[in-house]
Amino acid sequence: MPNITLIGTGTIGLSWCAVHLRDPTNRITIYDPREDLVPYVKSLLPQYLSSSSISSPATPSVETLLSNGTITLAKTLDSACTPETHILQEQTPENPLGKQVLWSSIVPLLPETCHLWTSTSGIPASTQAQSLSASAKARLLVVHPFNPPHILPLIEIVPSPDTSADEVAFAMDYWKGREGHTPILVRKETKGFVANRLAFALFREACKLVADGVVGVKEVDEVLEESLGVRWAVKGPFASYHDGGGEGANGGLKGLLGKVGGTIDEVWKDGMGGKEGLKEGWEDAVVGQTEEVYGSVTKRGLWERDWVTRRVLEVRGEERGRVKKEEGERKGEGEAQGNRE
Amino acid sequence: MPNITLIGTGTIGLSWCAVHLRDPTNRITIYDPREDLVPYVKSLLPQYLSSSSISSPATPSVETLLSNGTITLAKTLDSACTPETHILQEQTPENPLGKQVLWSSIVPLLPETCHLWTSTSGIPASTQAQSLSASAKARLLVVHPFNPPHILPLIEIVPSPDTSADEVAFAMDYWKGREGHTPILVRKETKGFVANRLAFALFREACKLVADGVVGVKEVDEVLEESLGVRWAVKGPFASYHDGGGEGANGGLKGLLGKVGGTIDEVWKDGMGGKEGLKEGWEDAVVGQTEEVYGSVTKRGLWERDWVTRRVLEVRGEERGRVKKEEGERKGEGEAQGNRE
Repeated sequence: MPNITLIGTGTIGLSWCAVHLRDPTNRITIYDPREDLVPYVKSLLPQYLSSSSISSPATPSVETLLSNGTITLAKTLDSACTPETHILQEQTPENPLGKQVLWSSIVPLLPETCHLWTSTSGIPASTQAQSLSASAKARLLVVHPFNPPHILPLIEIVPSPDTSADEVAFAMDYWKGREGHTPILVRKETKGFVANRLAFALFREACKLVADGVVGVKEVDEVLEESLGVRWAVKGPFASYHDGGGEGANGGLKGLLGKVGGTIDEVWKDGMGGKEGLKEGWEDAVVGQTEEVYGSVTKRGLWERDWVTRRVLEVRGEERGRVKKEEGERKGEGEAQGNRE
Repeated sequence: MPNITLIGTGTIGLSWCAVHLRDPTNRITIYDPREDLVPYVKSLLPQYLSSSSISSPATPSVETLLSNGTITLAKTLDSACTPETHILQEQTPENPLGKQVLWSSIVPLLPETCHLWTSTSGIPASTQAQSLSASAKARLLVVHPFNPPHILPLIEIVPSPDTSADEVAFAMDYWKGREGHTPILVRKETKGFVANRLAFALFREACKLVADGVVGVKEVDEVLEESLGVRWAVKGPFASYHDGGGEGANGGLKGLLGKVGGTIDEVWKDGMGGKEGLKEGWEDAVVGQTEEVYGSVTKRGLWERDWVTRRVLEVRGEERGRVKKEEGERKGEGEAQGNRE
């Protein structure tokens, strides 16, 4: 039976626990020095299990999981790291020295085959592994979720230059095999990895537009919710711009860049660093890969995009309406209760 | 009855037509010099009407709409611009001189009260209106949709400094009053307005990551589809970072910037222009507005976000599965047909 040890159970760690519990063969050991660990796990974990994006066979209650040994709350760091630990996953505070000290303390307690995963959002595996043996360096890599992992599918897999190809393959296969998750391999240790870099680039421009008085915070959020977010939820930016270029040999991303590349470049020059910041040949690289991945744009493809987009908007509207109505009813009940008292 | 004239009916113009047809009191005149206008409208418009994001009362066939005068295909530009035109909406090619010439030619044919809307994605109303009278300048503004307008709700309303407050209010109210649309007011004429600026900022970083070999085109698209896109479809970036900072007085966007502001800044310095590109006081501006718009983060709010996100992912999965299955069946039928022949 796979034994998974989680070190640190803030919201990310406990959400990982909910994810691992989807596989009933997993045994999970948790170590967290917080004093209220038992009531904390008992109160928060059931919420995560009930809102999980994957409907799994009825999960037993947390009390049962604790009493039948599916979950073990370790009293010490040492007792959480046993020779039977298959995967060690850490989500301790974001502090390079702290992570280095952690790995140096626990690696000797773990088997030579243990997979060493860090949930860090910014401290590269190579930094964390500095004082470790070559064998441990080869097994350590970043497994970075998008918060909360029990809802959102993305997992960034970021090896260091010392991580072995086998360990990368193990992590990729592990998450590919799990419904509700999409691992992507980040080939170089880049500050912020990929998702946060993309988000921060957009966020910088958003803050700039607000600071310059072009729009307010609410309008920025509406723009994302009513256009870009929905569009990218259905098809990412390269696929979307490829569609935007239209059908035929002169269409696609190449056609789009031919038509609006000048405007894009002007906007980039207007406070975003211009295209000078990009490596030479970037246009050929993105056009070539986009054509390879998606082929030509078709009428049917555009219709499918619009159909899925329309359904996403419909369901979002329905669910927003439902949670709002429920909230109103809860408030109404609360007030009625108050009136009776 | 409101008479709306559309000049130029590429995909945007014809999609506007589908939008306007949701209101059965509208009368629509189309002018487009393309030679195949009649077969083009007859073949494409029904598709737009059937995939429209709003279920409207059964729309008559395009033949009926043409024969009963709901849609008129004008033979000349002059005959499309009559003293009865209530709204003139243009979506001609993106060319400053072309737009200036168009407005100079048609404004004299239109009533002094006609609302002058341009669908441009980049040529400010002030540039387009240069040779017009003060009265016409006051009535001209940008009404920029996100493609395709019959699916996506966002409409950017961008007045020039000469546009009257009444005209801005008319356009905002017009679209607020229409289901399936969310107008946002862009307070300054900024190159690329808001949605495209935000998209181009993210796209620049995406192209950079691909050019630098950090990830490929497919991985960038997966990142958006499996994390940021879905997140922003439910809650925009300010609301999402506000949530990310957690509950309580030390949480929210302020708490988040306190915790990860350093990382954000390091990423911005790494090829995005740094925070030096932002006006002084930008942090206070975004934190203040975010708190004002969203209040404090609550457990219930986070639960609602996760619930809606989960449902959006479920429905996206279902609909993707359905269109894929349909496509497979169509292909299967095609092949079976081929085998019989």
